[in-house]
Amino acid sequence: MKAAATAAAIRAGRLSAAEAVERTLDAIAARSPAINAFTAVIADRARADAKAVDAAIAADRSPGPLAGVPFAVKNLFDLEGVTTLAGSVIEKGAPPASRDAFLVRQLRAAGAICVGALNMDEYAFGFTTENTHYGPARNPHDTTRIAGGSSGGSAAAVAAGLVPLSLGSDTNGSIRVPASLCGIFGLKPTYGRLSRQGAYLFAASFDHVGPFARDVADLALAYDALQGSDTDDPVQQRRAKEPVMPRLSVGTKGLRIATLGGHFAANGLPECFAAAEIVARALDATARVELPLAAQVRAAAVIITMAEGANLHLPDLRTRPDDFDPMTRDRFLAGALLPAHWLAQAQRLRAAFREQALALFEEADVLITPATPFAATPIGQDMIEIDGAAIPLRPALGAFSQPISAIGLPAMVVPLADPAAAGTTNGLPIGVQLIAAPWREDHLFRVAAALERAGVVASPSPPER
Amino acid sequence: MKAAATAAAIRAGRLSAAEAVERTLDAIAARSPAINAFTAVIADRARADAKAVDAAIAADRSPGPLAGVPFAVKNLFDLEGVTTLAGSVIEKGAPPASRDAFLVRQLRAAGAICVGALNMDEYAFGFTTENTHYGPARNPHDTTRIAGGSSGGSAAAVAAGLVPLSLGSDTNGSIRVPASLCGIFGLKPTYGRLSRQGAYLFAASFDHVGPFARDVADLALAYDALQGSDTDDPVQQRRAKEPVMPRLSVGTKGLRIATLGGHFAANGLPECFAAAEIVARALDATARVELPLAAQVRAAAVIITMAEGANLHLPDLRTRPDDFDPMTRDRFLAGALLPAHWLAQAQRLRAAFREQALALFEEADVLITPATPFAATPIGQDMIEIDGAAIPLRPALGAFSQPISAIGLPAMVVPLADPAAAGTTNGLPIGVQLIAAPWREDHLFRVAAALERAGVVASPSPPER
Repeated sequence: MKAAATAAAIRAGRLSAAEAVERTLDAIAARSPAINAFTAVIADRARADAKAVDAAIAADRSPGPLAGVPFAVKNLFDLEGVTTLAGSVIEKGAPPASRDAFLVRQLRAAGAICVGALNMDEYAFGFTTENTHYGPARNPHDTTRIAGGSSGGSAAAVAAGLVPLSLGSDTNGSIRVPASLCGIFGLKPTYGRLSRQGAYLFAASFDHVGPFARDVADLALAYDALQGSDTDDPVQQRRAKEPVMPRLSVGTKGLRIATLGGHFAANGLPECFAAAEIVARALDATARVELPLAAQVRAAAVIITMAEGANLHLPDLRTRPDDFDPMTRDRFLAGALLPAHWLAQAQRLRAAFREQALALFEEADVLITPATPFAATPIGQDMIEIDGAAIPLRPALGAFSQPISAIGLPAMVVPLADPAAAGTTNGLPIGVQLIAAPWREDHLFRVAAALERAGVVASPSPPER
Repeated sequence: MKAAATAAAIRAGRLSAAEAVERTLDAIAARSPAINAFTAVIADRARADAKAVDAAIAADRSPGPLAGVPFAVKNLFDLEGVTTLAGSVIEKGAPPASRDAFLVRQLRAAGAICVGALNMDEYAFGFTTENTHYGPARNPHDTTRIAGGSSGGSAAAVAAGLVPLSLGSDTNGSIRVPASLCGIFGLKPTYGRLSRQGAYLFAASFDHVGPFARDVADLALAYDALQGSDTDDPVQQRRAKEPVMPRLSVGTKGLRIATLGGHFAANGLPECFAAAEIVARALDATARVELPLAAQVRAAAVIITMAEGANLHLPDLRTRPDDFDPMTRDRFLAGALLPAHWLAQAQRLRAAFREQALALFEEADVLITPATPFAATPIGQDMIEIDGAAIPLRPALGAFSQPISAIGLPAMVVPLADPAAAGTTNGLPIGVQLIAAPWREDHLFRVAAALERAGVVASPSPPER
């Protein structure tokens, strides 16, 4: 059951929050092991929260817009009394969190009930959630395949219907990649829009947090609840003072929507371009526009991420490198060895790309690109052939998401209702990325809702298990 | 003669621009060699400009607020037809500039006349103008001593009375240090206030441009003329969109002025603290406030400067290191070898320091610090003893200027009218740094004018030569 329907049933007395939580706990116990989505279940606390929601309803107090809606969070969000692992074993030595992360508090304040923590790439450094310590998250549509990452558990849990909502983080695509591969909706809001307080960071100048859901209404419900000014997040507080770009009137013909060419029309398999084309056709978006620095800024994003990530973990890299996941250890160590003038150059490029993108938003309101260059691949696969060349698969997954998060633009991934029409094998899901100007998440929701009404996007059901 | 008096005399017909230029050219020929301030004189063009000013006056057209006022620029500003050397020999191979830098055009549009280019540290990397290729700039108050740098020629030329106005650049203190050591006024405006178009950059995220003068009125005349929106400067265009921090009302009691303690009350010789104390006393500024991250952010500024500078010059460092000035070569090479995670950490610190400083400006409008830790030292001196420890002299000169430019705050150096009262040896000049909130250069001018009216600050005359 989706979030809106669950909350409505609970408010109407057709379902109690306690029942909703028990069903969710049962579903997790029965079906999470096959997809390895949950790394912690917090049943006692969820039951107590459910009791409070039911008591509020009985007392005729407002139970909130997400009354009794179960949700779960990537295990880098603080949950009071739980140690925040961020996919690592190193953090096992850290004390339990003393309070919930800001976004968890926001959802709970809206009546939602947190039931647990979800699998991820160690320290969020990956696009596949092939976590060596805790095992890979598995794609509900084909459990031999990756769920995407680094928020793989968050996407898999929602795609499998274990919870209607989850939270992830996105540094270079870590919400958008698993949303695309698992066939759900994922929102990476504008950099600074949502508080990151209580979220274990990775590369601070790129880190975003955001929700996953199975339809636009649920995503909007979650996004509405998540917003709020948090004086504990200096980035959010600083960004809130920035001016919103002046917008041209969109007029009666609605939003100006274009497809991104160049870098975004190459570097993928035919299925991803077909998916973007299906969405563009449904929106009557015939214009094609360019961001000529996109390929370079993707390289810049890699450099900045590696330098900031290495800086964050330097003490552990120096003293206990063997405790890192072998999947991330070499990446972090390589980051520690980068020269500073590369980082200076990368930041120069990033600033220039930002100017380029802001200029483009004078002409267009929403941009369409593929979300990922291909659908879910088998767990363990290292290489993939694109345009006749075998390239490393894991970094390739970020081709279309990295340039966008590098400058903090809001982006939403919407799943094709009929991925077979784009030519994916075995009906595997695939998503399309919608991108808007800073602070214009509203444009993304308008376009996604129109696509959903037209039946073009919807979360495909995974096979029953 | 100062700028305001020169322009008034020319407008009133008591002096022609042609005479003003000839006197200036004569003075440069007679007295620049002793201080090695000028590296190029552009006499023909200056004479043509003077003719145009005199013709405008004869035709009763407005000659501009700086009618016929001679000025000169650090040799990193483009002058049409002249190769911009930026203190190097490497750039001798570059073509002559195709047009004047924006700031030169602004001054000329106001009627001022450019007479030449001025000595500097190679590529602006230094605080002493000990340029091996072109010889050191010499302090007009004692030609065996440094003029400060990197805009040493700009400060020496104004202090010696060769021109009433000059332009410099300031990355870590390159306007403020020579202003202090030469006993003149220097303004480093808010980062992004003045266009850098046509100025050879050094570390782009720190580079500022600004004027030198011998009194507050002249500095204000120059600053007024220099301002203007320039679509060729992307940083200026971007920064112009940023909000000005909301200001508390300053009330009838005037500005809230405080002295910075901590880092700014140590790391110098007694003369610099005495100078700041004289200014604070004159302003009745008894409050002492702190910026606890100042020392760390100074280190961060060094790292960022070295990384950005090395990035800019990397091709030459790789292929022709021997063509660099031995004074800068090792600094640039060291910058090329810094690890990226240091830069990431430095930028993290810089962001935190910026928040700290902006918070402080909720309580104070103008902050007072020493401008330099000591007065001018002998050319060639490598070490200096401060607080009982011998430390490298050249980097020490930036102790109080670096933390301020690192976050782009506007700052003005004002010269003590009676430096002997601060205890400098042989009456050598010394300046004091005034700092304001972003975009509040007006506060600096108000305080400097009050100090000048009170006779506390004024440009001391160098000995006749």
